[in-house]
Amino acid sequence: MDYSARLALLRKSLAGKKLDAILVSRPENRRYLSGYTATDHGISETSGLLLITRKGSTFLLTDFRYREQAEREARGFKVLLNTKGLFHQLKSLLPDLGITSLGFESDYTLHSTADKLFGLGRDLAIKMIPLNGLVEKMRLVKSKDEIECIRQAVHLNEQVFQKTFKQLSGRETEIELALELGAEMRRRGAEREGFDTIVASGNTSSLPHAVPGRNVLAENAPVVIDMGLVLNGYCSDMTRSFCYGTADTRYLEIHRIVRRAQLAAISAVRSGVSAGSVDMAARKIIVDAGYGKHFGHAVGHGVGLAVHEEPRISAKSRKKLKAGMVITIEPGIYIPGWGGIRLEDMVVVREDGCENLNTDTTWLDI
Amino acid sequence: MDYSARLALLRKSLAGKKLDAILVSRPENRRYLSGYTATDHGISETSGLLLITRKGSTFLLTDFRYREQAEREARGFKVLLNTKGLFHQLKSLLPDLGITSLGFESDYTLHSTADKLFGLGRDLAIKMIPLNGLVEKMRLVKSKDEIECIRQAVHLNEQVFQKTFKQLSGRETEIELALELGAEMRRRGAEREGFDTIVASGNTSSLPHAVPGRNVLAENAPVVIDMGLVLNGYCSDMTRSFCYGTADTRYLEIHRIVRRAQLAAISAVRSGVSAGSVDMAARKIIVDAGYGKHFGHAVGHGVGLAVHEEPRISAKSRKKLKAGMVITIEPGIYIPGWGGIRLEDMVVVREDGCENLNTDTTWLDI
Repeated sequence: MDYSARLALLRKSLAGKKLDAILVSRPENRRYLSGYTATDHGISETSGLLLITRKGSTFLLTDFRYREQAEREARGFKVLLNTKGLFHQLKSLLPDLGITSLGFESDYTLHSTADKLFGLGRDLAIKMIPLNGLVEKMRLVKSKDEIECIRQAVHLNEQVFQKTFKQLSGRETEIELALELGAEMRRRGAEREGFDTIVASGNTSSLPHAVPGRNVLAENAPVVIDMGLVLNGYCSDMTRSFCYGTADTRYLEIHRIVRRAQLAAISAVRSGVSAGSVDMAARKIIVDAGYGKHFGHAVGHGVGLAVHEEPRISAKSRKKLKAGMVITIEPGIYIPGWGGIRLEDMVVVREDGCENLNTDTTWLDI
Repeated sequence: MDYSARLALLRKSLAGKKLDAILVSRPENRRYLSGYTATDHGISETSGLLLITRKGSTFLLTDFRYREQAEREARGFKVLLNTKGLFHQLKSLLPDLGITSLGFESDYTLHSTADKLFGLGRDLAIKMIPLNGLVEKMRLVKSKDEIECIRQAVHLNEQVFQKTFKQLSGRETEIELALELGAEMRRRGAEREGFDTIVASGNTSSLPHAVPGRNVLAENAPVVIDMGLVLNGYCSDMTRSFCYGTADTRYLEIHRIVRRAQLAAISAVRSGVSAGSVDMAARKIIVDAGYGKHFGHAVGHGVGLAVHEEPRISAKSRKKLKAGMVITIEPGIYIPGWGGIRLEDMVVVREDGCENLNTDTTWLDI
């Protein structure tokens, strides 16, 4: 990845906002700008912050636990270890750098931390400026290298799904199947699961965010598997729905509506159209079929270093899609007491349409 | 768990601070007060907020994805679904409740969210007050029921460790072993891993937060396993160090120093002493043995609904321990290029000493 080009672009943004420097706290942004792969144990336990000045300095502020990793990965960044906490470190560092205005990530900084930053700013006569989505905006359109990483993450995810699907005995519980999928991801080289794998069968499949249970997969009833992994930092996200056993007429009817909705949305994707029009392409089919109130979420979201990122592909969004964005297309129909069906692929927005990164066809066109 | 007693205590705090209501966003606090077990997919994707008024109303504000779970679990709370977002919901709800001052959790609210809350407060003439650790303070001292839950979580964690340890073939990679530990936790009924299981062997064991790698366990070199699980909401956290193969003189020497440090700290624990004195009891032994600069972290931390919570057991802390607190005691020595050794048990602070919740003795006294 071309970190120096990214830093140059970031510095241009800083100049445009008349900022001398920025503190980068969101793990994906940190990785995007420096190559430092550490994740946080929750927002209260950071594994480091980047401090990037407009004039050209780049620091990674962390503590001794991450020293070896930080020095190995964040090439070009000076790794500074704080022994008395971040604020102590900033207090001694910032005045020497001649910084008079410092941006921080409002969307990934706790109110209590921001409060301390403002206090420090008053002490040091530095303006602390909350920023929203500055680095996230840079991440919206993916480079060729990034798309290649995402393609590999999608491919690996499909391999894991297909291998596990073929070996289904029907005696697995939801939890066992979810564990096996997560383990197989890591055996094959994934850094980690992108999110807790969802395996939901029978009527729990009507919960879009179902937690796998101790029940054996229901027979002749919908099963939803929503899974994703992280490979070289980039995420994949895929959902397949099927019946273990025989699909009845109702299953077939609803599955086919969801699939038609998905294909309609995929056909609607190309550079220049609004995110809302893509959602509406899928939604219209589900509404027309009489299931509108059973499709309560947006049709998709961006995927990259984060599994959920901009743009949201929701009905009311007027944001224009651009070539190089990578988004999911995942309509679903959820009927309490019966179950749910969701189908999810990932596509790259192109000038004249889109490229579907998924090639798995398991139970798609039944 | 006695949720109504907890709510009564919280309302007393609100009265003391002259607050009409509180918004509770931290998942562990939410669960502590309501029984709602959902976790968040990161701080930007909440699965709900509690709104608790001093006068007696209790709401759980969430969206359609969590409806069934919220209604089933959060007994006594009125579940309100937001379809147009949280702020829209608050805007219509707050005026009807006659609230003029509303606290929110400064330590678990993003700066950008707090900013919107302040804006809403200006519109509705409601004072928005940042709070630090109000519910966390209530969670510091554990009830008998809670200690029983933690005991069970510790016990299950040890069973998982012992079973896996006995089956070690020495051909496992760090990742395979970490996966097997995590899977066994869930097979035996854990809700989830409390954190990513650490399996670090050879010189990567010198990283206190090592990520398991693709290498087979090093022979005749230190192996550190740091693992914990969540059972009925409560966490366990345990570390064992051993050699796969034969321990040489250096390993034995360092292991015994760490163990002596751990025993010294455990002996120092009782109600009324400072957290710092417990840390120093362990630290003195490691410093006197000449390894002071290789023990860079605090000796322990509180454990409960969160795997890391107050009190921190660090050298400079003057906080007094109280009977009913549950803390880890986990000194370590980390030598870059060689490896590390850490030993971690969990103890309950008692009036006259402490009770060690761990009974596993694997490789402790060698």
